[in-house]
Amino acid sequence: MSEGWSSASAWDELLDLARRWVLRYQGQVRRLPVLAPVEPGWLASQLPPAPPMDPEPPEAWFADLERLVLPAVTHWNHPGFLGYFGITGSAPGVVGELIAAALNVNGMLWKTCPALTELEQVVTSWYAQAMGLPGSWFGMIADTASTSTLLALGAARERAVPGVRDLGLAGGPQLAVYCSQEAHSSVDKAAMVLGLGRQAVRRIPTDQHFRMRVDGLEAAVQEDRRRGVLPMAVVATVGTTSSTSVDPVPAIAELCQREGIWLHVDAAYAGSAAVAEEFRWALAGCERADSFVANPHKWLFTPLDCSCLYTAHPQAFRAAYALVPAYLSTETPGALDLMDYTFQLGRRFRALKLWFVFRAFGIRGLAEQIRRHVGLAQQFARWVGQSCDFELLAPVPFSVVNFRWHPPRLQEESALEKANRQLLQAVNRRGEVFCSHTVLRGRFALHLAVGNQRTDEEVLRTAWEEFQTCAAALKL
Amino acid sequence: MSEGWSSASAWDELLDLARRWVLRYQGQVRRLPVLAPVEPGWLASQLPPAPPMDPEPPEAWFADLERLVLPAVTHWNHPGFLGYFGITGSAPGVVGELIAAALNVNGMLWKTCPALTELEQVVTSWYAQAMGLPGSWFGMIADTASTSTLLALGAARERAVPGVRDLGLAGGPQLAVYCSQEAHSSVDKAAMVLGLGRQAVRRIPTDQHFRMRVDGLEAAVQEDRRRGVLPMAVVATVGTTSSTSVDPVPAIAELCQREGIWLHVDAAYAGSAAVAEEFRWALAGCERADSFVANPHKWLFTPLDCSCLYTAHPQAFRAAYALVPAYLSTETPGALDLMDYTFQLGRRFRALKLWFVFRAFGIRGLAEQIRRHVGLAQQFARWVGQSCDFELLAPVPFSVVNFRWHPPRLQEESALEKANRQLLQAVNRRGEVFCSHTVLRGRFALHLAVGNQRTDEEVLRTAWEEFQTCAAALKL
Repeated sequence: MSEGWSSASAWDELLDLARRWVLRYQGQVRRLPVLAPVEPGWLASQLPPAPPMDPEPPEAWFADLERLVLPAVTHWNHPGFLGYFGITGSAPGVVGELIAAALNVNGMLWKTCPALTELEQVVTSWYAQAMGLPGSWFGMIADTASTSTLLALGAARERAVPGVRDLGLAGGPQLAVYCSQEAHSSVDKAAMVLGLGRQAVRRIPTDQHFRMRVDGLEAAVQEDRRRGVLPMAVVATVGTTSSTSVDPVPAIAELCQREGIWLHVDAAYAGSAAVAEEFRWALAGCERADSFVANPHKWLFTPLDCSCLYTAHPQAFRAAYALVPAYLSTETPGALDLMDYTFQLGRRFRALKLWFVFRAFGIRGLAEQIRRHVGLAQQFARWVGQSCDFELLAPVPFSVVNFRWHPPRLQEESALEKANRQLLQAVNRRGEVFCSHTVLRGRFALHLAVGNQRTDEEVLRTAWEEFQTCAAALKL
Repeated sequence: MSEGWSSASAWDELLDLARRWVLRYQGQVRRLPVLAPVEPGWLASQLPPAPPMDPEPPEAWFADLERLVLPAVTHWNHPGFLGYFGITGSAPGVVGELIAAALNVNGMLWKTCPALTELEQVVTSWYAQAMGLPGSWFGMIADTASTSTLLALGAARERAVPGVRDLGLAGGPQLAVYCSQEAHSSVDKAAMVLGLGRQAVRRIPTDQHFRMRVDGLEAAVQEDRRRGVLPMAVVATVGTTSSTSVDPVPAIAELCQREGIWLHVDAAYAGSAAVAEEFRWALAGCERADSFVANPHKWLFTPLDCSCLYTAHPQAFRAAYALVPAYLSTETPGALDLMDYTFQLGRRFRALKLWFVFRAFGIRGLAEQIRRHVGLAQQFARWVGQSCDFELLAPVPFSVVNFRWHPPRLQEESALEKANRQLLQAVNRRGEVFCSHTVLRGRFALHLAVGNQRTDEEVLRTAWEEFQTCAAALKL
């Protein structure tokens, strides 16, 4: 051990222990409680407050992994995990991540790992083509959609105010960013980080199906122009976080082009749906976007983190971010240095896992999984729709159902919210399934999302029974 | 395969293939060329331009991994990789990453994986204690030091101009950030992203050992105050990227306290050195920092990405970043939601790999590796110092040596630069070792960094011979 675990036998021993642990975990996860049944502070209280002075044998770490860590894990791998957006770290993606960790390359420059840079370009193009988007777009992989949207809005800021990267915003014009009331909070966070301020974000009203109203957008842009505020970017969403609604991108793109405003599309969740042709409609107009993000780590069976950011204008990203200190200068003609397109210097080999996923499933296999998930959500929505005591709160275009318990005797919104909060807590406590919640047009909604490969009709039937059983047992 | 690789046999087959691939790779990496001997575009040209429609068997992906990807990899695992900062993805860290990928949890909220949040708190505290810093600091793990510094300066901005996250910078005061001429480019990038502009960064001159001059800092702060510019933050560096110099943090902290300026310390590389007690001197004064970053993925045998960001003021980070939409609201008293301290929502279970590293090595084992690396660098520096044709260009406090070829017949700086560029290219092309370069006080420097566990005296002897042999063969 004192040789630092670099011997062949140490690698062999540890890889074998880990392989066996993962196999056992994957086999048993459906029998564990979905939501970790622990109180805040429990795990921390079980661990030594100070680090070990001397090496401990692997058996000790793996025993603690099982005994202490596992009980405090909320199992996103459980077939009954139906909260937020369900995700799957499929086996091909997981072993891709293992290989990336073992290679441990940093792709800040082309030459520090040509394979990383080029595979990232190739697989992001594959993914764009799979969604029916331009394979010629410049693609790169970020950690999260929050970062992708931040990067995109940073590029938009530089295009709106050339030189702002050097001069800063103080003394410059007020800028505005437009998105719908249903857009993700990452738009606000990006505006905060970029120094635009949260007040620069105009939350445009939505129609009855939670889609951005283009007349509202138009009015907001004109109002800003009248007030001397410079419209900087519109963020349209394909598959909003709460209801998975799809903004009318063709009309928004038209407006953006006419007004000269950068259009960023956040398709973090629903972009992957377009791998199945019948969902291509959702991305109509996106080919006209200036930047676009979709996350394979959400609905494309790729482990965290893998957010694909595209742009038709790589030069705008270079203009915003490129900065080459002497110690990173290179002289390789034709080499693409990805550090020039982002603020992060270090870059993991994330493309490997996505490459493995594409090759393992093929487009047809991916589409089949997506269809199956949408079918399951629609099945659940039918059960809700046929029930006297439950109701749907939004359309179900993809794999997410928003619904609530609404027994005839409850009419007040506040009473409904209280009842549904109690119901959700009761269901989640039982550990068979886990759902999250949201608020849609002021109404508290139960939020069920199918995204795990292991989720099947039996699981959804269990979920439906859990909600009914717990509702019947609730004393209001 | 159509069941989507979620069967036990698929997991078994893939994990076994990957395990065997990693074992073979780790065994052979020292026999591969360090720097990928390919031209830009080679790998991309070998891959199909469109994604596969149908599943392919794992044998096909693994064959392409070997045949196409591996030749285009620059091997950071090679014992002769001596560029930038050498790093090691040790076996305990790599299997920690495998387990994190297999769990595939998203720790955006405490409840979405209590183990992730709490282990992250515990191991960052362990690491702080191991460096002799306050174990009570609030710690979290980001992807890169670039992100950590961006997050810290975002918190500093909010403290300097309360409300700026909502109101933005337009119409606000000019702000200034101070760092030395040797500080990392991530300070400039953070200023660009945050809307301060690159011009807000004051690059303070350094002394003869590349350390920030506190009198220069003092003068710059006073000059800004006179001009009505608000000093926002100082970024001190412990272990600069080029020469690993250490800024005089105690005096800088004194000045920051007196002036009410946020002090961020970038110890991304050299922080880990302090795990060995004889290098604790380097972190003197850092306990007074407002924020501090050190990267276990650099010199603590942890695979990318793992950057530990600390603060004495977690509330300042919450003030800058917390924003809770309805779909993420929780009601768990005492629960820490890490999304409130950053702009990224998604969060991988990075703490696992660092936990395994601490337990595998123990503090004594980690310190032993660090001592060994410093000893090797100093050995190399002695060879350079004793040579008539080479010279050192900076002190060697840690594991990095900056030197150059300087035969008596060459005197002009431009001729020296040209000769050393040629020499470096010749050495790197041979594939036995890889060094990078930097520029120190206008002089082009060869940059040799020891950070790989496999690097031993024989490797450094080879490196030294390579430089001498190639120099002798160069026609100037």
